[in-house]
Amino acid sequence: MIMINGAQGGAIPVMDRAVMYGDGVFRTMRMCHGQVLCWQQQYRKLSADCQALDILCPTQKILEQELRLLAFDEPNCVVKIVVSRGEGGRGYTMPKLVSPNRVVLSSPTPQYPAQFWQEGIKLHLCEIRIAHQPRLAGIKHLNRLENVLARMEWDDETIPEGLLLDADGWAIEGTMSNIFMRVGEKLITPDLSACGVAGLQRDRILKHAPSLGLTPEITHITLPSLLRADEVFVCNSVIGLWPVRQIATTSIPLGPIATQLQHRLESTVD
Amino acid sequence: MIMINGAQGGAIPVMDRAVMYGDGVFRTMRMCHGQVLCWQQQYRKLSADCQALDILCPTQKILEQELRLLAFDEPNCVVKIVVSRGEGGRGYTMPKLVSPNRVVLSSPTPQYPAQFWQEGIKLHLCEIRIAHQPRLAGIKHLNRLENVLARMEWDDETIPEGLLLDADGWAIEGTMSNIFMRVGEKLITPDLSACGVAGLQRDRILKHAPSLGLTPEITHITLPSLLRADEVFVCNSVIGLWPVRQIATTSIPLGPIATQLQHRLESTVD
Repeated sequence: MIMINGAQGGAIPVMDRAVMYGDGVFRTMRMCHGQVLCWQQQYRKLSADCQALDILCPTQKILEQELRLLAFDEPNCVVKIVVSRGEGGRGYTMPKLVSPNRVVLSSPTPQYPAQFWQEGIKLHLCEIRIAHQPRLAGIKHLNRLENVLARMEWDDETIPEGLLLDADGWAIEGTMSNIFMRVGEKLITPDLSACGVAGLQRDRILKHAPSLGLTPEITHITLPSLLRADEVFVCNSVIGLWPVRQIATTSIPLGPIATQLQHRLESTVD
Repeated sequence: MIMINGAQGGAIPVMDRAVMYGDGVFRTMRMCHGQVLCWQQQYRKLSADCQALDILCPTQKILEQELRLLAFDEPNCVVKIVVSRGEGGRGYTMPKLVSPNRVVLSSPTPQYPAQFWQEGIKLHLCEIRIAHQPRLAGIKHLNRLENVLARMEWDDETIPEGLLLDADGWAIEGTMSNIFMRVGEKLITPDLSACGVAGLQRDRILKHAPSLGLTPEITHITLPSLLRADEVFVCNSVIGLWPVRQIATTSIPLGPIATQLQHRLESTVD
């Protein structure tokens, strides 16, 4: 089901700035039994990302109305919300009056093998490096060609994710997920102030870390330090959390924290 | 007039990867008396950009058919062609079969003041820096948020363009144009191997330079060297060429080459 500004439909005006410039933001989330998981936080993130690009965010109320319609149609699905700046403007110049277009759509929950959660995954090491753009860093915006090119680098269904480094060689994220490593009692995730997308599950994991006896840390991570970590895992709102058992050709140990965090992410709404 | 895959219409499937990821390329060109200026070179550029992203480019023949329809409707206009990778795929993963969507649309030729050509323009000096992404450098792709943010920095109709520097401070381009400086008998334009869009008029100017007694050069340009140049101008396929008479608060001398090149660009098809 696809809703555009509240009306069912599958097409968006071609002059929308999302089409022409990728001028918009999005969120991807899971709906279970008609409820969007972590909806309050998802909306806060959407709102913050809109604000970062000076796009008028739809109200929470209007999105909730549309999510209810979606839930009626498909109570268990993946939901994507796209908010574009709207139509028009001559070239890059902003139109005097611009009205955001919002897309709310559902798609089937992807069926990944259970082993990805239980036994961990392999990560492809992407060749493309993510560019530094502090003005866009952290934002889930619609300029995603780097991710597209990264995902085109491998074609192997047993490898569900790739690791992205930035131009300086720091480990940043997966193509569709954030990454963490545990080193002793530290739970470390990359600094995303120059590039990368700061996902919601990353926030949640950072928040849960202390209650698992771990000290959360946001810092630069080198590839060698990631390969030597005690545990590595990736997360996003669709998959939850996948332990990582291999990066390129290097085996990574599995550990207890990934499993504990999987349960936390599934069982709490924080 | 808007044509999508040859049919008149104003909407594109929301699942198109141009909407979701900016996964596509575009060209902007002028149509005069029913003819697209420099069409052969425009098509070659479109084709090269498609190839760089592994997008199947529509044939020249099919685009020419659609341009003829457009010309019938509006013989003097600006034409934009957008080629997206097409619809679908779960997340970033490429669908097994993907069929590009092409948009061919016309819009009125923008009415800039004649002084922009005759007396030169002021350039805003943009605060946002363009990120280095060698894999996308030179390509006219649909991930244009940097340009959008740059163009949002000023709101003054007497300033039609802004100068973009890269993260290292090198002068790269305008938000919608390429830039040149003349220093003595050298005609210099920035190296775009790390970022920027290599426009068609830039190629044409480089080609014409020797016949005007100038040595073309592609290299890194610092902002101070640009501010000290004997002449500066910007170019694109819609405006042709505008001399630059001021960058931020610094006056730039006007010179004879800009005018000579204006005539060359208008009078030749090369």
